Amino acid sequence: MRDVFVAGVGMTSFGKFLDRGLKSLGREAISEAVDDAGATLDGIEAAYVGNAVGGLVTGQEMIRGQVVLSSLGLTGIPIFNVENACASASTAFHLAWQAVATGVHDIALAVGVEKLTHDDKSVSFDAIGTAVDLEAKAEMAAALGSEGEDRSFFMDIYAGMSRSLMERTGLTQGDFAQVVAKSHDHAALNPKAQYRNTVSPQEVLDSREIVWPLTLLMCSPIGDGGAAAILVSEDLLKRLGRDQDRHVVKVLASELTSGRSPHDANMKKSVVRASEAAYETAGVGPDDLDCIELHDATAPAELILYEELGLAKPEDVGGLLRDGSTHLGGKLPVNTSGGLLCKGHPIGATGIAQVVEIVEQLEGRAGDRQVEDAEIGLTENGGGWLGDDSAAAAVHIFGRTNV
Amino acid sequence: MRDVFVAGVGMTSFGKFLDRGLKSLGREAISEAVDDAGATLDGIEAAYVGNAVGGLVTGQEMIRGQVVLSSLGLTGIPIFNVENACASASTAFHLAWQAVATGVHDIALAVGVEKLTHDDKSVSFDAIGTAVDLEAKAEMAAALGSEGEDRSFFMDIYAGMSRSLMERTGLTQGDFAQVVAKSHDHAALNPKAQYRNTVSPQEVLDSREIVWPLTLLMCSPIGDGGAAAILVSEDLLKRLGRDQDRHVVKVLASELTSGRSPHDANMKKSVVRASEAAYETAGVGPDDLDCIELHDATAPAELILYEELGLAKPEDVGGLLRDGSTHLGGKLPVNTSGGLLCKGHPIGATGIAQVVEIVEQLEGRAGDRQVEDAEIGLTENGGGWLGDDSAAAAVHIFGRTNV
Repeated sequence: MRDVFVAGVGMTSFGKFLDRGLKSLGREAISEAVDDAGATLDGIEAAYVGNAVGGLVTGQEMIRGQVVLSSLGLTGIPIFNVENACASASTAFHLAWQAVATGVHDIALAVGVEKLTHDDKSVSFDAIGTAVDLEAKAEMAAALGSEGEDRSFFMDIYAGMSRSLMERTGLTQGDFAQVVAKSHDHAALNPKAQYRNTVSPQEVLDSREIVWPLTLLMCSPIGDGGAAAILVSEDLLKRLGRDQDRHVVKVLASELTSGRSPHDANMKKSVVRASEAAYETAGVGPDDLDCIELHDATAPAELILYEELGLAKPEDVGGLLRDGSTHLGGKLPVNTSGGLLCKGHPIGATGIAQVVEIVEQLEGRAGDRQVEDAEIGLTENGGGWLGDDSAAAAVHIFGRTNV
Repeated sequence: MRDVFVAGVGMTSFGKFLDRGLKSLGREAISEAVDDAGATLDGIEAAYVGNAVGGLVTGQEMIRGQVVLSSLGLTGIPIFNVENACASASTAFHLAWQAVATGVHDIALAVGVEKLTHDDKSVSFDAIGTAVDLEAKAEMAAALGSEGEDRSFFMDIYAGMSRSLMERTGLTQGDFAQVVAKSHDHAALNPKAQYRNTVSPQEVLDSREIVWPLTLLMCSPIGDGGAAAILVSEDLLKRLGRDQDRHVVKVLASELTSGRSPHDANMKKSVVRASEAAYETAGVGPDDLDCIELHDATAPAELILYEELGLAKPEDVGGLLRDGSTHLGGKLPVNTSGGLLCKGHPIGATGIAQVVEIVEQLEGRAGDRQVEDAEIGLTENGGGWLGDDSAAAAVHIFGRTNV
């Protein structure tokens, strides 16, 4: 495997854009990434396109990447449409990384794009609810008491996990509210975030209950957006004529796996397996990280992930949050972008939007939310639900370097 | 790139199975391929799963591969859900090949599965019709005069191509009928084909007109099915303890590309580019081929592809068909499986079903439809439509060898 660099990134603002489609969102993100890399569209050798529910929400199925890319004139190259629920974009990124790392291509485009809003909100909720085994869904819904409720089925799954977490660790609903307040503090500094207001933990607790212990503000919103990255080999990076003073971000590890087998209770959870493998490949550990973007589809998920990513023992998770360690200014800021909760979660775009944030942090161009002297960052992106684990999990580790 | 071998293949019968779903179809194909390879499920290192319209027809979107594979207990590995319309399975196969060729994995599973039939046939037709740019579809439909017709939109696209072909080359509706009669002759010998009856060219011409010059029997049917292949490195192949007397099939070339750019009229069509690249990589030409499986979604497409694959000059295409060269027993039998027209076309499974046929031919186990001493075979699989070309095209070349 040879070194792979992220030469450029781009993303749209995230939000509810009823008048924009996959093409418009994808084009903006791709164009920004190509410009950021100092590359040209006609130099791109292959494209990996993540999208999760375009078929169900917009009707556009089967060749979503070609539809977006042809509107930029970018066809005639291998185009791969990939899907892994909320980890679709990370899956596209992983394949693009692999193609460059193995020498198949010198420059590849990874893009994630999602048009999730719909005039009829139930279309969006129903689409998100397909990221489980539909044949098992009725049984799961009955067990969770969620039949017929007007909300994403995943909120019921997360609420069940949250209740277990509280019983197991003593974490409280107030802790979840503090996660949300932190995310809003960060998103307020991010011009591309869906929600840019600050909120207090009490306001979070006072917001409408979705399903106990989750309140509305503890749940990531429905939204639209696109995010893109240009991955290159070292030779190609040099040919791009990059500014000598500009840092460059190297992919230190890219790991993708699927949920543990229902037949193997001893198998570790997907995020644990992916992160352990990534730490080993990158030659770094949790203590070496300067910033993290993780999959906080709900607030409690952030705390579960502190443990699964090896940041803290179960009994220390609450402390890591409460002492400000993961707040901007702390020793390991988490979700400086605002995360899924506040930056937004257009599901098929999320994985690469996380990469955009880490790349901007490591290049030192994150503006008001800059983590001082950030050198190593991690992204964690999960997708779907199967049995008792995410259906897909991706962990990437990035390092700042100069070429 | 290192050598990659197809250690085993499997597929379901193709047909209308209203009582079977993605899991049932996928499981059967995968289990057969794993057994054929002498491998075990828990040895599989990664899975690439092609499906085109599961979300629209069955509702199961986003994690289709995980849903199918977890029902076999096969999770905890990287699972990639890929989509490229009717070329979805070839795309899965290409990525699995690439992973083994580049040393990322030693054994990978490629599977294509499609549940296309639905109680309401318009659901199937509408799903197939999403393999174009939906925003451009109304305009295309108006130009083709197909608005509101109860048929797959692709039949209108193919009918337009067929009329151009007739004007350009002098090929006739009778030639198209002869293609169909040939495919039925072949499918009658294939126990897994959807249609196993023989028909005369006159019966083809007498069948209901779908849209001139296409009659019902010139169009591939709606159907369900699954197909799978196990790809391995040479070292792993040896470890499988394969019978010394059994031939093994090597992948000589795997090429995937997308349609020509609408901005570049000089770019060759996708199948031409993919096949030229494949011939060069494999070090063989059309004259070296012993058998071909190509994408005859309609009968005229087979004749167009004779030209695009370099089998004949435009003026010689009709002769190649009429003199029996591409019939079983001729010098280059095409679609010995019965092709999409008669074996069937569960769209996301088709690309790997083509591979299954070529592998069985090269291993000498194609039964009554065996091509004598077949050593080199080719598959061509197209997907979707964009501007004036397929949205995706894949060409694979395989060679018989011993290890």
